[in-house]
Amino acid sequence: MAFDLAEHPHRRYNALTGDWVLVSPHRAKRPWQGQQEEVEKETRPEYDPTCYLCPGNERAGGQQNPPYTETFVFNNDFGALQESTPAGGFEKGGLLQAESERGICKVICFSPRHDLTLPDMEVADIRKVVDLWQREYEELSKLDFINYVQIFENKGIIMGCSNPHPHGQIWAQSSIPVEPAKELLQQQNYFTKNNRSLLSDYLAIELEEKKRIVVENEHFVVLVPFWAVWPFETMIVSRRLFGSLSQITEAEKDAFADSIKKLTVIYDKVFNISFPYSAGIHQAPTDGQEHPGWHFHMHFYPPLLRSATIKKFMVGYEMLGNPQRDITPETAADRLRGLV
Amino acid sequence: MAFDLAEHPHRRYNALTGDWVLVSPHRAKRPWQGQQEEVEKETRPEYDPTCYLCPGNERAGGQQNPPYTETFVFNNDFGALQESTPAGGFEKGGLLQAESERGICKVICFSPRHDLTLPDMEVADIRKVVDLWQREYEELSKLDFINYVQIFENKGIIMGCSNPHPHGQIWAQSSIPVEPAKELLQQQNYFTKNNRSLLSDYLAIELEEKKRIVVENEHFVVLVPFWAVWPFETMIVSRRLFGSLSQITEAEKDAFADSIKKLTVIYDKVFNISFPYSAGIHQAPTDGQEHPGWHFHMHFYPPLLRSATIKKFMVGYEMLGNPQRDITPETAADRLRGLV
Ligand SMILES: O=P(O)(O)O[C@H]1O[C@H](CO)[C@@H](O)[C@H](O)[C@H]1O
Ligand SMILES: O=P(O)(O)O[C@H]1O[C@H](CO)[C@@H](O)[C@H](O)[C@H]1O
Repeated sequence: MAFDLAEHPHRRYNALTGDWVLVSPHRAKRPWQGQQEEVEKETRPEYDPTCYLCPGNERAGGQQNPPYTETFVFNNDFGALQESTPAGGFEKGGLLQAESERGICKVICFSPRHDLTLPDMEVADIRKVVDLWQREYEELSKLDFINYVQIFENKGIIMGCSNPHPHGQIWAQSSIPVEPAKELLQQQNYFTKNNRSLLSDYLAIELEEKKRIVVENEHFVVLVPFWAVWPFETMIVSRRLFGSLSQITEAEKDAFADSIKKLTVIYDKVFNISFPYSAGIHQAPTDGQEHPGWHFHMHFYPPLLRSATIKKFMVGYEMLGNPQRDITPETAADRLRGLV
Repeated sequence: MAFDLAEHPHRRYNALTGDWVLVSPHRAKRPWQGQQEEVEKETRPEYDPTCYLCPGNERAGGQQNPPYTETFVFNNDFGALQESTPAGGFEKGGLLQAESERGICKVICFSPRHDLTLPDMEVADIRKVVDLWQREYEELSKLDFINYVQIFENKGIIMGCSNPHPHGQIWAQSSIPVEPAKELLQQQNYFTKNNRSLLSDYLAIELEEKKRIVVENEHFVVLVPFWAVWPFETMIVSRRLFGSLSQITEAEKDAFADSIKKLTVIYDKVFNISFPYSAGIHQAPTDGQEHPGWHFHMHFYPPLLRSATIKKFMVGYEMLGNPQRDITPETAADRLRGLV
């Protein structure tokens, strides 16, 4: 019996982080009697007077939103990071260590329309979101105390999203969080050794193998990473090597918006519902150093596995050991590609 | 304004893994309009004829459970790991890397009673579970192809647990998963440098500070780690340095059962419901090498944050950046200690 990636349990290496994932291809067949989640199915109004993100409405913090007509950004009234945090730290025996962390948390409304999500929006309107992401990344990176900018979206109540109005967030901070720090190290090492970016070489392999590609355009490729953890996890990777939205061209911004539209439209077809996910852009740190190996990309982590209500639980073994998945990335890519 | 761990956003270092967690003490006050989870509140029968874990019943795989009266262990009919997996691997350009993984997945019923959970059981009966964990760890570690044994429990439907009958699992495998691999490295480095275990020294600090201790007995201490990620996360640490259940004494086994009982009883009082969690024992790898720095401990990762139905979501920022928590470990420990 020969080892077969499509049949036998195996571990895959995540070249971007240095982590591993356990893949159990045979396991999709196990019976399920556990939790099903509620899935939002209501039709929402274009404007909701009780929504704190709709134009003109009052927010929980007491401020009033302007009557915005495209995108809108404001400082999170309950941000996990604050600009005013004093410097300092705490240490004991080398084993208790804490460091003060300064930062800024923002909320970005993608559209004034309460009833839309990214896949419902025109590419031209998604492009306006990309423009805003770019402006914010550039503004924040000018601040001395901001060394990393995380742009992300939580979509769907199953993802802890507290309001269905289409919106994302930015958490910008002094230190580089754990995940981008791992990616930085892996990308740096690879670039130093090969003088090419890790993701350029990876993309070349994927474009040759064609097994995990979902959809492409002139400037971006959407694929299920070889080392994907979530059942329908994907990554949008730029064909050209650049590190952040400060280096993106106009044509690439259009193509990026186009990729987001194409991918999210496919996602909504998987289980015929508005597909929940967390997504975010991994860009070069804004710490004033050069990061020539950092290759711009966006991750999508959708939790659903079996149906509109049954997600993959990252629990016991996954928390204590490492992430585990039941269908292979190749099967997931096939399925997504079939929905283009 | 002086920096204060109880007031200001900060990062804490996890000495056991080398990771960081973002702590936002001020954030517990933010409003919540998002998802609430169903919480199991039914009273269950002592015996459920439709349960595939109850004594005498038939399992999904077709086999019949014996009429067991204490604990019961069997090979998972839908295990993520299999003993028969052929050796092999896959590699391309150093960027795609996979390795075949052999292993064994088992299910352990804690009690024949369908209606109990660990906190409902007598310490003497929990002790029987500890005995079984020990037997299994020892048996599995004798197998050449098993280099790491993960014993764990997923409790509650919110944790993806597929059956409320009190049970846990064991996933034993050829390679060392990511989390224990990080702990191994940190504990090894510390031991080499100090000739004492990291957790012995850590425990000494905690016993002196008393801020994060929940409950103790002669042989074990239950505490909220300084670097805890989940709102009411705890760790059971042995006072004596030993690496695994093969080195535990009879008195320590009783005390371990007692700690589990005490902790889970407290947990059920937090929101007056059967408290969901994933929990698991981190023991020395069974790879035939000495691991003198590995210090036996058990983690409890409970997801609830605000109420019986509102959990902490580890989503966007947490997936793309790093874990974040809203109440401090000290506040959580205070709360738990108040329920002893
Ligand atoms: O084996 P179970 O209880 O059916 O499954 C549960 O625990 C496993 C181990 O943590 C996870 O991989 C599954 O996602 C979860 O649903
Ligand atoms: O800021 P929100 O949308 O209220 O909150 C959500 O996203 C945050 C960032 O990923 C998480 O820390 C919260 O646990 C989650 O509920």
